[in-house]
Amino acid sequence: MNLQKLITDSICGAAANVFSTMLGNDLPEGQVSIETGTPEPNDGVVSFIGIAGKWVGTGSITCSPALACRVCSLMLMVEASAVDADVLDAVAELTNMIIGSVKTDLEQHLGPLGLSIPTVVYGRNFRTKSAGQHEWIVVTYLWDGEPLTVKLCLALSERSTHFASSIHVQALEV
Amino acid sequence: MNLQKLITDSICGAAANVFSTMLGNDLPEGQVSIETGTPEPNDGVVSFIGIAGKWVGTGSITCSPALACRVCSLMLMVEASAVDADVLDAVAELTNMIIGSVKTDLEQHLGPLGLSIPTVVYGRNFRTKSAGQHEWIVVTYLWDGEPLTVKLCLALSERSTHFASSIHVQALEV
Repeated sequence: MNLQKLITDSICGAAANVFSTMLGNDLPEGQVSIETGTPEPNDGVVSFIGIAGKWVGTGSITCSPALACRVCSLMLMVEASAVDADVLDAVAELTNMIIGSVKTDLEQHLGPLGLSIPTVVYGRNFRTKSAGQHEWIVVTYLWDGEPLTVKLCLALSERSTHFASSIHVQALEV
Repeated sequence: MNLQKLITDSICGAAANVFSTMLGNDLPEGQVSIETGTPEPNDGVVSFIGIAGKWVGTGSITCSPALACRVCSLMLMVEASAVDADVLDAVAELTNMIIGSVKTDLEQHLGPLGLSIPTVVYGRNFRTKSAGQHEWIVVTYLWDGEPLTVKLCLALSERSTHFASSIHVQALEV
């Protein structure tokens, strides 16, 4: 199994599906790239949702305040012109739906995974960094002329690594 | 079981223990309060780590850039004077240790829980909001004359709620 391809395909499928069914909008094809874990400057709206189980990670969506308002307007059918609590909740729910769908896809190959509550950050010129040096699989869309990014990092949890090592040692000993 | 008291006691114990063993510093007694989920203005460094399982939630630590540098200096034994990748990783690791310890305490009462990878945000005047209207249990410490906050929100996951409802319905039907 190529985990990177699995995650990429799953993000693309989930994003297209959620945009079409929940927001009534077709997403254009996304650009796939890989990011390392250096602290990134951000402007606008960034969400995070934790994945936990034998594999641990984080899913994230980044967009401009204008796109966040548009997501909210399409989702709640109420015009949103400034980033308020409803807009942040709409981006949180979008994150929940897209990363939740990716999680369901991944569970078929990786076993049960848990999903935490999304958190959304809004501001100008703030930096974000996840612990350690994980690689992020990044899919960037141009929606309404502005970038919208969906990304995910995933690694075997240390507890699972220890467990896998002990299995390996046992296998060597048999 | 009083979940709020359990979480409060666990945060206080975990924070005191991690500060004493990992940073060689005694924390003064913390102030406990409850926050609702309105978007909060933040300055400085804020970490998030997801909790997932039958219960879902988020743990978070907030402090000033100066305190974040001090955590890094004490943890890595190297002077840190500006918030760089090492400082963000040190705050991520502090979050991992304190919320990881709280998770272990909670598991004795709530069953197995997973912990995601922490994410740290650094900036000025940014807002953060977790999805929905969860209550946060907040413990604020005055360390080196500046506030350091450890907080946690936790709720039964919707999947578990549906499961619990179906058990309840079955119980009524029997």
